[in-house]
Amino acid sequence: MNYEYLFNIIHDKDRVRFGKNIEEKYLSDGLKRVKGVADILVFPLTTEEVSDVMKFAYENNISVTPRGAGTGLVGATISTTCGIILDLSLMNKIVELDEDNLTITVEPGILLKNLQAYVEERELFYPPDPGEKDASIGGNISTNAGGMRAVKYGVTRDYVRGLEVVLANGDIMNLGGKVIKDSSGLDLKDLIIGSEGTLAIVTKAILKLIPKPKKSISALISFESLHKGIDAVIKIIKKNANPTAIEFVEKDVIQNAEKYLNLKFPDIKGQAFLLLTFDGDEELEIESNYNKVREVTLESGAIDFILLNKKEDIDRTWQIRGALVTAIEAVSEQEPIDIVVPINKTADFISYTKVAEKKFGIKIKSFGHAGDGNVHLCVIRDGMEEEEWNEKSHLLLKALYNKGKELQGLPSGEHGIGLNKKPYFLEVTDRVNIEYMRKIKKVFDEKGILNPNKLYE
Amino acid sequence: MNYEYLFNIIHDKDRVRFGKNIEEKYLSDGLKRVKGVADILVFPLTTEEVSDVMKFAYENNISVTPRGAGTGLVGATISTTCGIILDLSLMNKIVELDEDNLTITVEPGILLKNLQAYVEERELFYPPDPGEKDASIGGNISTNAGGMRAVKYGVTRDYVRGLEVVLANGDIMNLGGKVIKDSSGLDLKDLIIGSEGTLAIVTKAILKLIPKPKKSISALISFESLHKGIDAVIKIIKKNANPTAIEFVEKDVIQNAEKYLNLKFPDIKGQAFLLLTFDGDEELEIESNYNKVREVTLESGAIDFILLNKKEDIDRTWQIRGALVTAIEAVSEQEPIDIVVPINKTADFISYTKVAEKKFGIKIKSFGHAGDGNVHLCVIRDGMEEEEWNEKSHLLLKALYNKGKELQGLPSGEHGIGLNKKPYFLEVTDRVNIEYMRKIKKVFDEKGILNPNKLYE
Repeated sequence: MNYEYLFNIIHDKDRVRFGKNIEEKYLSDGLKRVKGVADILVFPLTTEEVSDVMKFAYENNISVTPRGAGTGLVGATISTTCGIILDLSLMNKIVELDEDNLTITVEPGILLKNLQAYVEERELFYPPDPGEKDASIGGNISTNAGGMRAVKYGVTRDYVRGLEVVLANGDIMNLGGKVIKDSSGLDLKDLIIGSEGTLAIVTKAILKLIPKPKKSISALISFESLHKGIDAVIKIIKKNANPTAIEFVEKDVIQNAEKYLNLKFPDIKGQAFLLLTFDGDEELEIESNYNKVREVTLESGAIDFILLNKKEDIDRTWQIRGALVTAIEAVSEQEPIDIVVPINKTADFISYTKVAEKKFGIKIKSFGHAGDGNVHLCVIRDGMEEEEWNEKSHLLLKALYNKGKELQGLPSGEHGIGLNKKPYFLEVTDRVNIEYMRKIKKVFDEKGILNPNKLYE
Repeated sequence: MNYEYLFNIIHDKDRVRFGKNIEEKYLSDGLKRVKGVADILVFPLTTEEVSDVMKFAYENNISVTPRGAGTGLVGATISTTCGIILDLSLMNKIVELDEDNLTITVEPGILLKNLQAYVEERELFYPPDPGEKDASIGGNISTNAGGMRAVKYGVTRDYVRGLEVVLANGDIMNLGGKVIKDSSGLDLKDLIIGSEGTLAIVTKAILKLIPKPKKSISALISFESLHKGIDAVIKIIKKNANPTAIEFVEKDVIQNAEKYLNLKFPDIKGQAFLLLTFDGDEELEIESNYNKVREVTLESGAIDFILLNKKEDIDRTWQIRGALVTAIEAVSEQEPIDIVVPINKTADFISYTKVAEKKFGIKIKSFGHAGDGNVHLCVIRDGMEEEEWNEKSHLLLKALYNKGKELQGLPSGEHGIGLNKKPYFLEVTDRVNIEYMRKIKKVFDEKGILNPNKLYE
């Protein structure tokens, strides 16, 4: 294939890299394990450039793999065929802040942390808060990223008011807008959100903002076992205490992160912890909410309830929470899983992981979003030989995904499916659903050039 | 066509009606204006019956028009071709209340008012609150119905966790579930929501509930003009006062409804009103919220601010609000419009309706959901001769929809498109969007038998 034509589209030579000049990081993702292949890497600056690249690819049947900041955990951004990698990280501008309609229009390459900082400086708030702050918004939209604050505020999907996307054939499509309600034809916008770049390329997003809550405090609650902690979660939710986040974690996972960061977790007795935040404008409202939680958790067997209201304590504690995975990865390769189950099945699912650990002889660490049944598992290699690891971990993962299904769960709550989870996703998803996903893929991309081989393909 | 085969599916003769035995109400909708045609009307009781009817229709190329309670306002449930009307009103059972996961699983025929009453008796709450309480949940899902409480709580889409649907070929598909987060493949669930029965037939829905707020009060704020009232809305929203509803209405529209109901609106000076509600568990939280609103509206020129905290005052006031359309219809035929614009364009849009009234010589009454830019217009016939009305109202509607588009709005915020708005929807929607809607239609219904001729077709 003669890619020279691309210089007619991307005039700046720095924004086009061929074959061996493509740095390794652009061929992989956040896990840095699988290494893809590609002929050429381009960095468009405008929607028109994206459109022109797609027209060229469409006419010449060249596959295109879009990527943002490369922090994904499922291989969705790894180019599996020769062709073009379309890196959107330079399209990272804030197009418009609309303080009347409380929306911000951004390009897809802007990093979550930069977006959050920009709006918070202006007393506004973008609630979705995935752990990875170096992710791009385009990536967040493509995986429908969730995060800590989903209990109160919902996930990325809930904050996408409008999208501009480039289709496989280069056409540009606008979906939604600044309006709040929409009953005007088929909901193509939500079809694109979470489609991991398999249907279209997001080139602009109109995001919903809210006024920034004036106050935020955290509470740490300890239990003698994880089971007791998880049992308390349903009671918390029924109390209408409106927590922003409800995270769960066990002591050994915390200790590992303490060691890694050389930071001290608050001094509290117990084997398992719930970490909550509450936010709002009124001290009294927050107080009433955490008092409801204090009461209901102590009633249901909590050992201790500590309020964290100093900024440094809150920051340190959440810093440790944020480093759980990295701390595990510092010790061993791990396979991240984010199966989601109905909240009242969370404890059953975690219990099963203890059974599975023994059965398959592989360690599993669990923690995550107790407030929405989104359990994060780290399946830990711990130096196991490659062949044994591949075989055993595959069987273990298969068992975990099937258990998730048995408990009426779904394979991914926020990371997406990509390449890594595709076999498990295909195994636990009804055939008719896969069939319709494939048919819809054909509608958007009949030549199969857009991020091929991912998810449902 | 020999429909006798249907007796092998629907064994109860009472649930099958032929040609002339089909009562008129099943051939029309909430507007009672257009009268459709149909060969046969069936009332299935189970998903299997729906599936078997669809298999029969699919094999024999018979069109099927699904309907619920028949309260729609856009003709989406009117059968336009000979064929089958599939009335889901007998599938109205509550399948399961899950108090741990705060979900309720229902059949599509259950009426909104019955669902609301059922959960509220149990101290739970289903927040979507469209004006029409006699609508079915299946209908609400099919139009992505909005309603009064959307400002705080969102619309129907936000409360649909899972769906069971029957496809055009009779296949049954399950989407979503009781899980809260979902990043597991293409979002087919949201594609079905709001598709007005053109892609699939909803046979079961898992809905999200929340704990019932313990307290609710309303506030009535008056202004010397509608423009001043609408201007205050943005300030209210920026204040983070978390109102449940923000409705706007002018004095003459209220007076008309007062006369119609023989009820008295609260005694307040001014030409235009904002009617708000606040709910929550804590008196103090509610108080803090309405005080923010009081302050900001009085600062921005409100004449008066009245708190309604007696149940009878609240009920009476909202009863009048609920009867605005009916009261107008008692006087004249009207064309209901629910164009949605960005909140800060609401005043511009309403101003344009005043210009359009004069230009086209047709009266327009406006009121609606100020908190989300969803303006309800009643375009009033007022005894105009049919030919003149058809011609003039069409030109007026075309102008209104184009103005909505110019203001970055969409044709429908909550009623849907159906049959009545199709020409305007097609006029103001980008061709590429329509093209993809039609292609997706073909994926779900390649024979075009499911609710044909509607929306984007």
